[in-house]
Amino acid sequence: MSWNIYLSGEIHTDWREQIMQGVKSHQLPVEFTSAVTNHAASDAAGDMLGEETNSFWRDHKSSKVNGIRTRTLIEKADVVVVRFGDKYKQWNAAFDAGYCAAIGKPYITLHDEDIIHALKEVDAQALAWAQTSEQVVEVLKYVIDEK
Amino acid sequence: MSWNIYLSGEIHTDWREQIMQGVKSHQLPVEFTSAVTNHAASDAAGDMLGEETNSFWRDHKSSKVNGIRTRTLIEKADVVVVRFGDKYKQWNAAFDAGYCAAIGKPYITLHDEDIIHALKEVDAQALAWAQTSEQVVEVLKYVIDEK
Amino acid sequence: MSWNIYLSGEIHTDWREQIMQGVKSHQLPVEFTSAVTNHAASDAAGDMLGEETNSFWRDHKSSKVNGIRTRTLIEKADVVVVRFGDKYKQWNAAFDAGYCAAIGKPYITLHDEDIIHALKEVDAQALAWAQTSEQVVEVLKYVIDEK
Amino acid sequence: MSWNIYLSGEIHTDWREQIMQGVKSHQLPVEFTSAVTNHAASDAAGDMLGEETNSFWRDHKSSKVNGIRTRTLIEKADVVVVRFGDKYKQWNAAFDAGYCAAIGKPYITLHDEDIIHALKEVDAQALAWAQTSEQVVEVLKYVIDEK
Amino acid sequence: MSWNIYLSGEIHTDWREQIMQGVKSHQLPVEFTSAVTNHAASDAAGDMLGEETNSFWRDHKSSKVNGIRTRTLIEKADVVVVRFGDKYKQWNAAFDAGYCAAIGKPYITLHDEDIIHALKEVDAQALAWAQTSEQVVEVLKYVIDEK
Amino acid sequence: MSWNIYLSGEIHTDWREQIMQGVKSHQLPVEFTSAVTNHAASDAAGDMLGEETNSFWRDHKSSKVNGIRTRTLIEKADVVVVRFGDKYKQWNAAFDAGYCAAIGKPYITLHDEDIIHALKEVDAQALAWAQTSEQVVEVLKYVIDEK
Amino acid sequence: MSWNIYLSGEIHTDWREQIMQGVKSHQLPVEFTSAVTNHAASDAAGDMLGEETNSFWRDHKSSKVNGIRTRTLIEKADVVVVRFGDKYKQWNAAFDAGYCAAIGKPYITLHDEDIIHALKEVDAQALAWAQTSEQVVEVLKYVIDEK
Amino acid sequence: MSWNIYLSGEIHTDWREQIMQGVKSHQLPVEFTSAVTNHAASDAAGDMLGEETNSFWRDHKSSKVNGIRTRTLIEKADVVVVRFGDKYKQWNAAFDAGYCAAIGKPYITLHDEDIIHALKEVDAQALAWAQTSEQVVEVLKYVIDEK
Repeated sequence: MSWNIYLSGEIHTDWREQIMQGVKSHQLPVEFTSAVTNHAASDAAGDMLGEETNSFWRDHKSSKVNGIRTRTLIEKADVVVVRFGDKYKQWNAAFDAGYCAAIGKPYITLHDEDIIHALKEVDAQALAWAQTSEQVVEVLKYVIDEK
Repeated sequence: MSWNIYLSGEIHTDWREQIMQGVKSHQLPVEFTSAVTNHAASDAAGDMLGEETNSFWRDHKSSKVNGIRTRTLIEKADVVVVRFGDKYKQWNAAFDAGYCAAIGKPYITLHDEDIIHALKEVDAQALAWAQTSEQVVEVLKYVIDEK
Repeated sequence: MSWNIYLSGEIHTDWREQIMQGVKSHQLPVEFTSAVTNHAASDAAGDMLGEETNSFWRDHKSSKVNGIRTRTLIEKADVVVVRFGDKYKQWNAAFDAGYCAAIGKPYITLHDEDIIHALKEVDAQALAWAQTSEQVVEVLKYVIDEK
Repeated sequence: MSWNIYLSGEIHTDWREQIMQGVKSHQLPVEFTSAVTNHAASDAAGDMLGEETNSFWRDHKSSKVNGIRTRTLIEKADVVVVRFGDKYKQWNAAFDAGYCAAIGKPYITLHDEDIIHALKEVDAQALAWAQTSEQVVEVLKYVIDEK
Repeated sequence: MSWNIYLSGEIHTDWREQIMQGVKSHQLPVEFTSAVTNHAASDAAGDMLGEETNSFWRDHKSSKVNGIRTRTLIEKADVVVVRFGDKYKQWNAAFDAGYCAAIGKPYITLHDEDIIHALKEVDAQALAWAQTSEQVVEVLKYVIDEK
Repeated sequence: MSWNIYLSGEIHTDWREQIMQGVKSHQLPVEFTSAVTNHAASDAAGDMLGEETNSFWRDHKSSKVNGIRTRTLIEKADVVVVRFGDKYKQWNAAFDAGYCAAIGKPYITLHDEDIIHALKEVDAQALAWAQTSEQVVEVLKYVIDEK
Repeated sequence: MSWNIYLSGEIHTDWREQIMQGVKSHQLPVEFTSAVTNHAASDAAGDMLGEETNSFWRDHKSSKVNGIRTRTLIEKADVVVVRFGDKYKQWNAAFDAGYCAAIGKPYITLHDEDIIHALKEVDAQALAWAQTSEQVVEVLKYVIDEK
Repeated sequence: MSWNIYLSGEIHTDWREQIMQGVKSHQLPVEFTSAVTNHAASDAAGDMLGEETNSFWRDHKSSKVNGIRTRTLIEKADVVVVRFGDKYKQWNAAFDAGYCAAIGKPYITLHDEDIIHALKEVDAQALAWAQTSEQVVEVLKYVIDEK
């Protein structure tokens, strides 16, 4: 059996690459998916349907186009990893976590200890909280490979 | 028909009271519900089941107890209003919005214009974005009362 | 038991009043709901959240506000009556019918014989096709009252 | 991952071919499905089960046979593109859109600007509105291929 | 709490009255519902929408009108009692049982011992098989009233 | 795309072989499944778990074992064909049809004209009624192969 | 709003009465439901449908009759309390917990500390673990009454 | 078609190997999955995310990590076999059975005769009760291979 893992959240550090690298080094049967992580491309996702002058509607249009991808890929995933960095609001990450909770999709949160209080509702429904990418890899290795 | 409205999110200003007051002044048939908004009580929700020394587990336990209430009330609501203030992370509000999106529960966001970019995914699936409590009241009045 | 009937579609003739009148004359335990049928108010439903200069976004915003009402009321209905008149596109009526079909909500179509070919997919999943409001009343009387 | 795209609606222009051609030129991993687009064959779909003299029942029978295909293929699709042309009622296209909205299936509408008002409820729940087949191809390329 | 019991199947004996009488004598909080049991009225349910010359379509039309009632009432029921008599095919009763099985609605079958082999698939998913109306009453009394 | 067709019902004539043969001759991409059609084996399905002296429980046990197969295969099917012959009660066929109706699985009925009245509820929710195996093959060919 | 609480599990101590008493003393708007807790009556629930000589089938029959009640009441409950005592296997309590977990029904476990290891999977999906009936009452009071 | 069988429950005897061996000897197209059956590894599943001093939280954390695997694999399974041994509480096995019952996943129980009374609720919703691994193999062979 192959596992499908969706990587949600923060796009300013290389945590996705770290997890992919670690999983690859263990030769686990995993296919990774993700939202578009090119920030500029993601913000401009709706522009191909016509430019908007109003910033709310530009964002709205782009978010919906991105939603075609994210909703589809989250629904297809076996497990979602949700990363919260130390900067920015990252409400989309919490939004994805709530979406997962509602449809019973298992998710793992990945964040530092100093934001555990702010993330308590998100962590309460997660099946694991990891502090490092290495821990996520270890959990995936255990879940997929252990006898 | 009576409407059940759940008020989610920020607990440091009186937006809930403003909405309840406005709805009452229009005599709309609405019952409001909400998470526990007493911050200290909410953080201590798990303490009655035994004190915890580890802050992660204290938060975890309290969040789960709060979840008995929030999950039940969100499921019963006809509409959810999700408020984002200008302080704090408020990931729980985004989490509730994601939960609503996943189960097809209509929700309205309430927040200032300066955070529209950070909230674009949350707003993209909302059925309305309001900037003031008065607007929420107007929307509810229209939705419930207009012929 | 009380029945909840949602009346969807055309807003330029008095078919809703005819059905309500007929049901009332038979003293059937029915509560009727509907989208907002005041055309101008419906088109302006989003204006209370701020005026839009772009007509697409004005429509978009108003449709979403109307969706808070229509989605909620259709979900609560026991039966939906979908009316197609001889003018206008009325895609929203067909949209409501498709929504009902997908969630297994029984619906009755109400339209003249000259448009049966164009409505064949909509009628194929309806549980009844009526040509007059009187027929809808008769069907409701039978469904609710017959022993 | 391969994507499954269902093309719904208007059958009098070559928009389907344009999209398929465009997607092919980008070598995207897409499988397209559709209702039967041969108009005469579609109208006669029920005739193989016995001829009908009454046109309502002939339509009814054919629509149901077509439903075996359309319902199955829409359920299997990842994304649905719904095309509205400038002629005919095309209630079946709006019906498909409503069906998609109800089951949370992402859909893109494709139509000219002059019918945005009539389609406002259909567009309000779409994840994108395109005016040309090229735009649909661009959106699909972005959704499927962007990093 | 009040219980809602749907009585499905055979319409040629007075088993419904027996159950209602028995339940009433125990003063159980039960509301009974049922398909239309007036055979002639049920067969003619579609006639009010226009006469049909073809008997298949007359039956089809009437069955659909009856479906508005039966589908709604089965969905609302807490328990369904499905009665198979010793005459006629009663495929509609087995159809209702299959419907209940699929949506996880508890049902009780009521039939004589000599048809247990033919009904084995229907009984296998029932939560009880009763041979007499008295037994159904006893089961309901136990389920509703026992401490 | 490959289609998965479940063949339900009567086991005393060779209608399954006729359909499989016809489908094969058209080289349609179809995989067929079915309940166990060896009557004796099916009745004895529970015997391997220990003999029963009571015939109700023997039937019960066998039906449940058969249910492991039938429930799984019906859920996986794209289309179900339900055959009613002129002998026996065949309540299991009607039960399967009701199951399909409840989960929105498209099904085709296959039976002679002389039992249309008894099967009216079953046919009312079917997407096609065929009188011969050839017609079923034609419908499948159209649904799967038509452009 | 009134809350519906289902009390599942151990029937040999008076924990149900303690909870009901405590809730009553706080005048909380709660309606309690439960399986039949009269052990002898529960074991004999199927006897009214005919005596069985085989103990497996007697149990089977009674469990199914009890299932009419338990499944219905668990589905209707807002919260389920699952009690594990220090004697007996109580697999039915763990079964109810698994059922709740699968349908997203919030549940609270009630058991002593010495069985936490054996109950770790059951507790992992519970929203609270209480060691005393008083704690359950406190949690309910908080969940229902706190502002 | 390939079948996916999840083996749940007791980990102290070699029943899993017996079933896998038997299925292999019949060359059935089956893929088996299971929770981690290495007891020590399973208990320590959460340790890789940081050691816990409190035994409740260590168990909690490990159970959740195990849940990523078990929930995913049970959802993907066609059939679940649930084994109860003669030692230990094995509440997790009953929990899995309840989970299966709630989502309509067919399951087979495997246990000795002396615990049938304690397991009556679990067995009542199972589709088969086997006493030996050989019987499970026979049932799978019949379900998968019989014509």
